[in-house]
Amino acid sequence: MTSTPVTVLGLGRMGAAIAALLLRTGHPVTVWNRTPGRGADLTGATVATELADAVAASPLIVSVSASTTTAAETLLPLGPALRGRTVLNVATGRPDQARDLAAALEPHGARFLDGAMLAVPQTLGTPESVLLHSGSESARAEYADVLAAWGTARYLGTDPGAAALRDMAVLGGMYGLFAGFFQATAMVGGSARPFTDDLLLPWLRSVLDLLPMLADEIDSGEYPVSFSDLAVNRSGLADIQATATGAGVRTGLLDPLLRIFEEQEAAGHGTASFSRAVAALHPAAVD
Amino acid sequence: MTSTPVTVLGLGRMGAAIAALLLRTGHPVTVWNRTPGRGADLTGATVATELADAVAASPLIVSVSASTTTAAETLLPLGPALRGRTVLNVATGRPDQARDLAAALEPHGARFLDGAMLAVPQTLGTPESVLLHSGSESARAEYADVLAAWGTARYLGTDPGAAALRDMAVLGGMYGLFAGFFQATAMVGGSARPFTDDLLLPWLRSVLDLLPMLADEIDSGEYPVSFSDLAVNRSGLADIQATATGAGVRTGLLDPLLRIFEEQEAAGHGTASFSRAVAALHPAAVD
Ligand SMILES: NC(=O)c1ccc[n+]([C@@H]2O[C@H](COP(=O)([O-])OP(=O)(O)OC[C@H]3O[C@@H](n4cnc5c(N)ncnc54)[C@H](OP(=O)(O)O)[C@@H]3O)[C@@H](O)[C@H]2O)c1
Ligand SMILES: NC(=O)c1ccc[n+]([C@@H]2O[C@H](COP(=O)([O-])OP(=O)(O)OC[C@H]3O[C@@H](n4cnc5c(N)ncnc54)[C@H](OP(=O)(O)O)[C@@H]3O)[C@@H](O)[C@H]2O)c1
Repeated sequence: MTSTPVTVLGLGRMGAAIAALLLRTGHPVTVWNRTPGRGADLTGATVATELADAVAASPLIVSVSASTTTAAETLLPLGPALRGRTVLNVATGRPDQARDLAAALEPHGARFLDGAMLAVPQTLGTPESVLLHSGSESARAEYADVLAAWGTARYLGTDPGAAALRDMAVLGGMYGLFAGFFQATAMVGGSARPFTDDLLLPWLRSVLDLLPMLADEIDSGEYPVSFSDLAVNRSGLADIQATATGAGVRTGLLDPLLRIFEEQEAAGHGTASFSRAVAALHPAAVD
Repeated sequence: MTSTPVTVLGLGRMGAAIAALLLRTGHPVTVWNRTPGRGADLTGATVATELADAVAASPLIVSVSASTTTAAETLLPLGPALRGRTVLNVATGRPDQARDLAAALEPHGARFLDGAMLAVPQTLGTPESVLLHSGSESARAEYADVLAAWGTARYLGTDPGAAALRDMAVLGGMYGLFAGFFQATAMVGGSARPFTDDLLLPWLRSVLDLLPMLADEIDSGEYPVSFSDLAVNRSGLADIQATATGAGVRTGLLDPLLRIFEEQEAAGHGTASFSRAVAALHPAAVD
């Protein structure tokens, strides 16, 4: 295994954890942070004061800025200094921003990989820590050993936006879960913690096991019922919303889903699975 | 341990599973179903053709109808035949419906317990199968052995609506999770199953572990940041919604949460935890 010199730009919570991980896995690491004074605790790392020195120090530049936008603001002014470098941006951002950054780096002769980390600093490097990445195929092949340090590295092809699209989708799923959590705790009132630990969490854990079945229903395109039809769920969700209103809780967070169920039932899909709600999310969809 | 004769009304998926469970735990069981012909496979159970005979057979009547409303439609016409009986309604329903049923049964001299099952037929009777119940304290004490058969029986006090309120809240949390799942799979397009198995599910599992921390933030009333502030989440969710729009996916399911984040950030709460969204769900809340 070769050991690739790597520069880490940005020493926030994630950047510091990534630098420590790369040091542990045997790579020479140079670090830089916009606000000086960070990195002294990263034993073995070279702390660069100047951004240009940091970029000159390694062929692979891992950018761990607040966002893809701030990463671009930091990197692009370097211009010709980027020639021959590979930039791996692991900040969260949109697919179009990743594509824009890839396009802006190209004239400077830099290769680009966009990364999306499904991980927190504590899980980084473990198998459940996933680094989605997409963009330059040659860079991906050349730095496979470095990418593997993240845990599970998954290459999604040459479209620099591919990793960010999946990341945004996964995070969208997460915000749905949070929205449900907020409505549930508001409805119960009183202490949220015992309700969460004793009732909500165990139930949500068991519900997660149902998602693969729902995914199969969606993939079939016909939404067959594996365990619950749309009419039952429309009625159940209507009861939940009425209960929330009765408890003095605003129902806004779940109203759009109820509206979709209602529309689809009215259109004659009450006996399909409730996963048919997905069909309403595509504007081209009839009903 | 005494063994209590129990009558099960309704032999749908749950009713049949409950009757089988009660037989397994040693109770004499009488069963009845609106549409005749069910129950023959329940070895050891007495199948009653007439509802009145079923109700006369046991002091404890477990009603497993489609809903609390259909349970009431079945039970209330029995009138004086209900005297001295205890009704345990385990159908899903709203707290006000449970309270109405309790009030309607009282003049007939019947005691009432409303139950809510956080379980599926497959998990019934295991420790993770929870039977929330509330209502008559004396009935709960008298039939504790029967209630324990469900798995984990949790009594929530004399308000007949208490179990249903928690049930509706937990199910509200579940629909948030489903809404997020629908948006996520719509955004990714292509096959939902591999995306669900490989990326979405592992991430949602790890996110569930964060909910107790968010519950503590909410309980403190001050929404301190344990891991992520409101401004960061407003910006992240805005990126997700823009990405969905770019992918031709309607964003409605998560728009209400984004709107709450935006309102709260505009009101100066950007540095609070994003769990502060809960405060917006109470109409009395300022901001
Ligand atoms: N933390 C996590 O669990 C996690 C998980 C998955 C993905 N991510 C993503 O990883 C990225 C970094 O997250 P983090 O938790 O490390 O954030 P953080 O602790 O807030 O650190 C942010 C870093 O970005 C730098 N920065 C901010 N604005 C900048 C600008 N305009 N120009 C140059 N540098 C700038 C900061 O430098 P200063 O010190 O100079 O401000 C700091 O180094 C984010 O995109 C985040 O979404 C984080
Ligand atoms: N299945 C689950 O995983 C689960 C989990 C938790 C809670 N629950 C709750 O348990 C209850 C029963 O669920 P299930 O899955 O057993 O439903 P199911 O399989 O659809 O069975 C429904 C039962 O209700 C009866 N019924 C329907 N309408 C009726 C009416 N108007 N009058 C009298 N009886 C009527 C049906 O009798 P017929 O045969 O005559 O139609 C049947 O016995 C529901 O409230 C459900 O929400 C179910």
